[in-house]
Amino acid sequence: MCNCIDFSLIDTAKFLMDNDNYIILTHASPDGDTLGSGYALYYGLKQLGKKAEVICPDVIPGKYAYFLCETDHICDKDSTVIAVDIADKRLLGSLEEKFGDKVDLNIDHHITNQRYAKALYLDADASATCEIIYELLLDLNVQLNDTIAKALYTGISTDTGCFKYSCVTAKTHKIAAALYEYSIGADVINKIMFDTKSKDLLTLERMVLDTAEYHFDDKCMIITVTAAMQEKTGCSGPDLEGITEISRSVDGVIAGVTIKQTGSDTYKASVRTYEPLNASQICNCLGGGGHKNAAAAILNGTLAEVKVKILDAIKQQMEETNAWTFVTR
Amino acid sequence: MCNCIDFSLIDTAKFLMDNDNYIILTHASPDGDTLGSGYALYYGLKQLGKKAEVICPDVIPGKYAYFLCETDHICDKDSTVIAVDIADKRLLGSLEEKFGDKVDLNIDHHITNQRYAKALYLDADASATCEIIYELLLDLNVQLNDTIAKALYTGISTDTGCFKYSCVTAKTHKIAAALYEYSIGADVINKIMFDTKSKDLLTLERMVLDTAEYHFDDKCMIITVTAAMQEKTGCSGPDLEGITEISRSVDGVIAGVTIKQTGSDTYKASVRTYEPLNASQICNCLGGGGHKNAAAAILNGTLAEVKVKILDAIKQQMEETNAWTFVTR
Repeated sequence: MCNCIDFSLIDTAKFLMDNDNYIILTHASPDGDTLGSGYALYYGLKQLGKKAEVICPDVIPGKYAYFLCETDHICDKDSTVIAVDIADKRLLGSLEEKFGDKVDLNIDHHITNQRYAKALYLDADASATCEIIYELLLDLNVQLNDTIAKALYTGISTDTGCFKYSCVTAKTHKIAAALYEYSIGADVINKIMFDTKSKDLLTLERMVLDTAEYHFDDKCMIITVTAAMQEKTGCSGPDLEGITEISRSVDGVIAGVTIKQTGSDTYKASVRTYEPLNASQICNCLGGGGHKNAAAAILNGTLAEVKVKILDAIKQQMEETNAWTFVTR
Repeated sequence: MCNCIDFSLIDTAKFLMDNDNYIILTHASPDGDTLGSGYALYYGLKQLGKKAEVICPDVIPGKYAYFLCETDHICDKDSTVIAVDIADKRLLGSLEEKFGDKVDLNIDHHITNQRYAKALYLDADASATCEIIYELLLDLNVQLNDTIAKALYTGISTDTGCFKYSCVTAKTHKIAAALYEYSIGADVINKIMFDTKSKDLLTLERMVLDTAEYHFDDKCMIITVTAAMQEKTGCSGPDLEGITEISRSVDGVIAGVTIKQTGSDTYKASVRTYEPLNASQICNCLGGGGHKNAAAAILNGTLAEVKVKILDAIKQQMEETNAWTFVTR
């Protein structure tokens, strides 16, 4: 949308002071950042005497229970709709039809934001939308408490891989330090978010490791998650998110590919790359897209056919970038 | 030793200003914290015009190369010996005989410090010895630079599981924020330290996952690393450190056991526990010891016999603590 107005932090704070009856939307397949942002903002607005409701298009996983609560019920009519951490209205999932064109304010940190809302406060330098919400709440003179700090910490920790990724800045750590002044139990949060998996998922990981194959002088690794594995272990969808990390965890691998069966002859290839390769360009060749280091494509055919297509695309990139002789570290 | 003098941060800084010809010792099987502390201190002392040498009892793994350098060669005679991050002189390994009773100053963060040095600056609230060295360098008016910041960040990040563990405090994050003011490439450091494993280690992990067995209503998980697996993959010793994490990664498991074969009829059991279990007490029953959540014991017998002993010890603890009915989270 071309009529999206750019808000500053101060504009955003003023907007929140001036309006009421907020519907706060989180994205589908909710993660720690969209939920942490939504609930921290909710608690802040309640302190300001506002009415607000948090609506998530999908069921919220039980692991986030420690900062959730029952929110108000806001009538759609006369409501003010806020989207948090939602770069594209399609990410509203089941709520897109109802709210996709009715978002009054979008608060986000994705540089790829599609500007679908009436107003947008975008800080692409923030490691997580929760970083933005933290600053917003300070600006609104909201008094933080343990629950708000837990929600904000969860968003920042999960979106940065626990302060591991390149999106982390000095500001990220400064905010974390401020949140540690509250009783957040960060070690427990991190254990839940990063180091707890189901017995079934561990079984699936074992099966997936059995499929590991290496190509191009071990610079490319492919792992496969078949429909049979998903059926046998009962793990699918969001359960499988961490699996792709395996494909790029091996020393020397610059193209890690996870092939996930999504239909009888349909597969989703998730590609993770390191320099000099570009995952986005590889997936473009396969009809997909994404970011420089992480991209995906949907492919049709048998598993063997799909693998050939992917390996061809990677080989082409490796030749174009002289990846055969590129020295990592 | 009962004659160990307790130093404050200021005493420590004064001692470093007043002396010269430093031999800085790191512990055997060196990790990021002992090396980061040793080299950051070295660079600081050089700025102050002092002579200093860093000595590590073992070969330093290549992954730390980005903050290492050739240090001075100090004559033992007239030297001032400093031990960093070394709680017990036995951790000096091959250097214990030579330096064990000659440490002039010990800088450490382990509450279990054995007070073997002539003077000790202990800050048990520090998440890493590198936290202490950071404060010390500030106190000494040392100008930080990219290399010093990389060394300090490495120690803090590795000793805290990348800011994940309960030892992290607001101060830890404040120091990280200060280090981010330099060009440290934290994402690259974290990738090297946490997310890179050899192809052989991944193969070993697959083999280990095949051995997973669950006991006591899935509250106990046992994984086994046999001698044959170590031989086949060429992975042993420090390579296997991360394997124990698998044993406590499964939801609901409160006793995670890794049995590693160390001889034809000898096994090392590493026990990781969550409330209400106590790993130290379990391992005491088995002739070993350690901390509340992480302990170990050496056991003799066949693998089957060893497992029976371990399961008996865990069962006893579970009964004593009513772990059968203890509700986690």
